[in-house]
Amino acid sequence: MSGTNGSAQKIAVLGSTGSIGQQTLDIVRSLPDKFRIVGLAAGENLALLEKQVQEFAPRLIYYQNSDNRLKASRSKFVPLEELATHPEVDIVVVATAGKSGLSSVLAAIQANKKIALANKETLVMAGQIIQAELKKSGARILPVDSEHSAIWQCLNGEMQKPERLILTASGGPFLRYSPAQLAEVTVAQALKHPSWQMGEKVTIDSATLMNKGLEVIEAHWLFDMPYEKIEVLIHPQSIIHSMIELADGSFKAQLSYPDMRLPIQYALSCPERLTNPTLPKLDWSKVSGLMFEGPNYELFPCLKLALEAGRLGRTFPAVLCAADEVAVNLFLREDIRFTDIARLVEKVLKQHQPVENPNLEDILTADQWARELALHFSGGDRLCQS
Amino acid sequence: MSGTNGSAQKIAVLGSTGSIGQQTLDIVRSLPDKFRIVGLAAGENLALLEKQVQEFAPRLIYYQNSDNRLKASRSKFVPLEELATHPEVDIVVVATAGKSGLSSVLAAIQANKKIALANKETLVMAGQIIQAELKKSGARILPVDSEHSAIWQCLNGEMQKPERLILTASGGPFLRYSPAQLAEVTVAQALKHPSWQMGEKVTIDSATLMNKGLEVIEAHWLFDMPYEKIEVLIHPQSIIHSMIELADGSFKAQLSYPDMRLPIQYALSCPERLTNPTLPKLDWSKVSGLMFEGPNYELFPCLKLALEAGRLGRTFPAVLCAADEVAVNLFLREDIRFTDIARLVEKVLKQHQPVENPNLEDILTADQWARELALHFSGGDRLCQS
Repeated sequence: MSGTNGSAQKIAVLGSTGSIGQQTLDIVRSLPDKFRIVGLAAGENLALLEKQVQEFAPRLIYYQNSDNRLKASRSKFVPLEELATHPEVDIVVVATAGKSGLSSVLAAIQANKKIALANKETLVMAGQIIQAELKKSGARILPVDSEHSAIWQCLNGEMQKPERLILTASGGPFLRYSPAQLAEVTVAQALKHPSWQMGEKVTIDSATLMNKGLEVIEAHWLFDMPYEKIEVLIHPQSIIHSMIELADGSFKAQLSYPDMRLPIQYALSCPERLTNPTLPKLDWSKVSGLMFEGPNYELFPCLKLALEAGRLGRTFPAVLCAADEVAVNLFLREDIRFTDIARLVEKVLKQHQPVENPNLEDILTADQWARELALHFSGGDRLCQS
Repeated sequence: MSGTNGSAQKIAVLGSTGSIGQQTLDIVRSLPDKFRIVGLAAGENLALLEKQVQEFAPRLIYYQNSDNRLKASRSKFVPLEELATHPEVDIVVVATAGKSGLSSVLAAIQANKKIALANKETLVMAGQIIQAELKKSGARILPVDSEHSAIWQCLNGEMQKPERLILTASGGPFLRYSPAQLAEVTVAQALKHPSWQMGEKVTIDSATLMNKGLEVIEAHWLFDMPYEKIEVLIHPQSIIHSMIELADGSFKAQLSYPDMRLPIQYALSCPERLTNPTLPKLDWSKVSGLMFEGPNYELFPCLKLALEAGRLGRTFPAVLCAADEVAVNLFLREDIRFTDIARLVEKVLKQHQPVENPNLEDILTADQWARELALHFSGGDRLCQS
């Protein structure tokens, strides 16, 4: 009956060849009566997109390079925004990297879609604009990040706003490193995350803890919580995905093995929960302990920079995102050291003259300014950036 | 404005001088605009009841010995059932010990009350009868036990039944004892619980893990869950009070410092959550780790006996409760050893001829039979029992 069920949720995946995109297709593959792919969009990996098109036969395709070699006789090539707003789409999964998600998310909001949002930069850069657009629309943002999904699941059924959000963080592969060891970290080491399977950019961001800082800013916008009520807690086992504290002092936590497919599936199926035998089952006899400690801001200055940029607001978060994207690319190309990522981001933030109540153009201008300055500071003007 | 707020919930506390009763009054004392005591009932501690009557000036009083010395000029002495069903009462807190809660709970159900239930024996002995009565009534049972409160809080907002309930247990003071050490345990040692402040009976039941077995039976009835879907997990820190596993493999947990006032307050205030500065706040910088292990059924046979009695059903759980109550009293009086508690309960269960589909009389008959046999086996016929 695969793909023929009329009650199946119809899904468009933006960024289908990336890590979250592929895991979204895993969920659809394992629950064909519940979900159907109607659109796929990818930027680079033509070979994989071709395979996906053959398997899922989407009606709509976007490919960044609109390459004629893509064999998809039963599909129609459309612009990305058309894919995100097409009447046949129930849920738009935004799993693109960097700022490329922003215009699709805005388009999907205006088209009253459910948006399963895996792209952090969208809310970090333009949280205020997104929230204003959401208020005018019937659209909903369904968080896909495991931390935000955990908070969202815990808030289920609570009538009042929480007192506090506790975002847990694995601490990344370098939790116990000395400053000297950290300066010598290789790309291969930084790409080995202890608990999560993710794309390259987010894996490096996890190793610097920039990722957790971006998540704090994202949580601020998603749950309308002031920064002083959002805390980061290091929890190396990555079993508790985040917690909420309620008015009476009760905490709620969501727990599972670290596997992105669970929050992806929940975003697609909520409020229903679906049995899926391909998801791993947490075996408590194998969980010896869950550990916690506060974050080390000295060793991981990216976290502090992100929290500061969040509190400063205006165009600072967009500058943070842009400078970090450039810095991570430079590190991945072995042009700068691991510890230079924070230095570069900090230098760019210090130079920034923020724009009050920025509109979308202001944000994109700040983004471009930050990218250019970051490349300039690194002496890497020769490197092209996304 | 204390006590004069017309919108305050009007509360009757059955067992006001016991541990849960006193903690219920702590909550009412700290939130006088939210809760008002209209009835107090106690069995033994006349001096404390007198103080409580002076402080809370309840309209209705029950005292087991209807002692004329009790000074309460503004209050009216009433039978226990009248107190549990009085039109002025919104919530009946049933915090009496042993089987004495049963008739009050049944009366309160028939009077469509909200029942904050701290008495385990009621549901263990007569779960089927209670559930049948609840179906005919507008009454609700609100769990006060920290484990059941945790499960109830986690189920908030979930549309589907959980796949599994995980009841956590501190493991009690003798978690790492050898069988030889366990046989030599003194009453003073057994009354020192590592994490919870509770009454004597439940503290000894926690040390034998009988308490956890009774809670499994209680959870079976409260949440309509088959026994094979209820698990016990040792968690010595008593921070996670229990968990639910959902269809998609996501777990939810409720966490706090171990303090019974939190689940008591939630039962009284739900679905609202109230800020209460007198409740302890969990400080994650002081929580180094949460540990887990499976229970040791060899060392703690009471847990196994309780699970077996639950699965066997019929009048077995009533016999379990009664034999345990006698055995714990004998241990507290230093007439039997700690390890004799399980032996005595097992001997009584083995002799029991169960009654199919028992009515209330069958249950009370089984209870009486078990008490007599337990005393007979222990050679303690001379000891009177409650």
